[in-house]
Amino acid sequence: MRALVYHGPKTKGWDEVPDPGIVQDTDAVVRIDATTICGTDLHILGGDVPETEPGCVLGHEAVGTVTAVGGGVKNRRPGDRVLVSCISACGRCGYCRAGRYGQCRGGGGWILGHLIDGTQAEYTRVPFVDHSTHLVPAGAADEAVLMLADILPTGYEVGVLNGVVRPGDTVAVVGAGPIGLAAILTATLLSPSQVIAVEPVSSRREAAQRFGADVTVGGRADAAVSSVLEATEGLGAEVVIEAVGVPETFELCTRLVRPGGHVANVGVHGRPADLHLEDLWIKDVTITTGLVDTYSTPTLLRLIAAGRLTPEEFVTHRFALEEVVAAYDAFERSAETGALKVVMTR
Amino acid sequence: MRALVYHGPKTKGWDEVPDPGIVQDTDAVVRIDATTICGTDLHILGGDVPETEPGCVLGHEAVGTVTAVGGGVKNRRPGDRVLVSCISACGRCGYCRAGRYGQCRGGGGWILGHLIDGTQAEYTRVPFVDHSTHLVPAGAADEAVLMLADILPTGYEVGVLNGVVRPGDTVAVVGAGPIGLAAILTATLLSPSQVIAVEPVSSRREAAQRFGADVTVGGRADAAVSSVLEATEGLGAEVVIEAVGVPETFELCTRLVRPGGHVANVGVHGRPADLHLEDLWIKDVTITTGLVDTYSTPTLLRLIAAGRLTPEEFVTHRFALEEVVAAYDAFERSAETGALKVVMTR
Repeated sequence: MRALVYHGPKTKGWDEVPDPGIVQDTDAVVRIDATTICGTDLHILGGDVPETEPGCVLGHEAVGTVTAVGGGVKNRRPGDRVLVSCISACGRCGYCRAGRYGQCRGGGGWILGHLIDGTQAEYTRVPFVDHSTHLVPAGAADEAVLMLADILPTGYEVGVLNGVVRPGDTVAVVGAGPIGLAAILTATLLSPSQVIAVEPVSSRREAAQRFGADVTVGGRADAAVSSVLEATEGLGAEVVIEAVGVPETFELCTRLVRPGGHVANVGVHGRPADLHLEDLWIKDVTITTGLVDTYSTPTLLRLIAAGRLTPEEFVTHRFALEEVVAAYDAFERSAETGALKVVMTR
Repeated sequence: MRALVYHGPKTKGWDEVPDPGIVQDTDAVVRIDATTICGTDLHILGGDVPETEPGCVLGHEAVGTVTAVGGGVKNRRPGDRVLVSCISACGRCGYCRAGRYGQCRGGGGWILGHLIDGTQAEYTRVPFVDHSTHLVPAGAADEAVLMLADILPTGYEVGVLNGVVRPGDTVAVVGAGPIGLAAILTATLLSPSQVIAVEPVSSRREAAQRFGADVTVGGRADAAVSSVLEATEGLGAEVVIEAVGVPETFELCTRLVRPGGHVANVGVHGRPADLHLEDLWIKDVTITTGLVDTYSTPTLLRLIAAGRLTPEEFVTHRFALEEVVAAYDAFERSAETGALKVVMTR
């Protein structure tokens, strides 16, 4: 088959590779019907994720069709149409049993396109398929469901729920790429009084408004601080969501939060940030980090079915699977192309 | 009257100063029967708290007797014996109405011995006395109640409750000075499976064991990490409490915590710390900071009355009020003197 293979920093190819097969009896093989590219894939190609080895097939988001299952699989069978989650879960370790699948100690967690071959391929092997996939609901569009492989549960769990958004809150979201937009969209489920998006790129500020931001601000830190303080009687936001992943934006978040508020870090970071404890020790601030667990995926699927979420709005560009290199190009140049999520289908 | 006056970094004196009087109609004047010295007073004398101006009377902990009240005071009268809390609270602003007295926006918060004259004096003016004091329960020892002016609610609220200690948890406390010991003592209220104290001074490690630590470790970071990992099947502690206030100990705390765990910062910091987001972004860690609110003081008073807490065990040294300079000396040289809390009485 063909797959998008990582060859080391900055190099990749749509290569011929061996077909995947069943390795563990809890595996399935899934034919990829639709997949997409994540900012994290660009981090890997940028060399920021050293544990991903050359030769690895990238991608951790897909909708597909089961073609084979191992003997230990109970709840999936060939022909099932499934959402392949970015998080695989053994289902049996202490973390999985507590619903913290992202921290799985039994061989799961974020492994697809990271530690094992991923989904930007014609077929992929999905470990622990009973726990790592969700059935595609009848009538749901593949493009909508595909957005639940990573960005929607990530924005919701790691941003909105970790940040403890409550009705009436002011929520500031720093960074309006796909993850920041997912946080904005899912924050609106909890009826904040205002959502303020901080984003330097004008096309993304426009997207932020479409997804539910009430106010948008350019990326300069002092302007962002002034805007948020002005909108909150000088106190700052109850909840600030970091959706970029560089020290400067994290540090900005700690300036935007009010005493007693929450900073929820969603960004993938490659460097330490300064934590200004000389200011923050007295401020009753809660800072959270997290990898998505995907415990919210069934909830989000219900919200799609109920018509309360239409995440297909994230999809700006469409390609055939074999055009994946062109799709990467459009995604990498998103400031010019306006790309949010690019979808490749068979 | 006489009072311990801050004259600028490293200088202080037991000076003759004007008697305090009623300024606002919600004030009381309290005769100081017992007071103590906090590590924060040493931070002020060290020049770390620039907003405290020379001429300020230090101290924010006392048990005393009301001698005069303003016309707007409803629940205190001359002769009442009261615990003067480190936190004054207007009782009316949004933060006070939410029980977050430490963040009071109406003129309270931590002001005694910080922004206004404090309690290391023969008399002190207590603002908002209805909200800033608690009646001393009949039969309770002054020394026990005095420990509830700051260290016990601070260790409990900012360490134990912010850290979300639950039965069965492993709790690591970094720093076994009075605040760290208060965290250890109040953590045991929630039945952790083990408490590990990290502390370089051997007399404080012994104190940690008396207050409830199951394991004590010296201060070297790598040794602390090894001990905590060994005690937790390689995962780290569910809850780590920072009770020192320097970047190195904060950074150690983020190495001791397990995925999904909490780091509760209690220490008063003067410098930024490195936050290693390149490791922590994926670890589901919650970091909290906080100034005590003292919402738990009534609970802690009930626990004293019930015989479940005996915080007078903190008191190692006793002085007359006019010996306060000698008391500071014993407290500052605690590594030699073994001082935990030094109490001065009239």
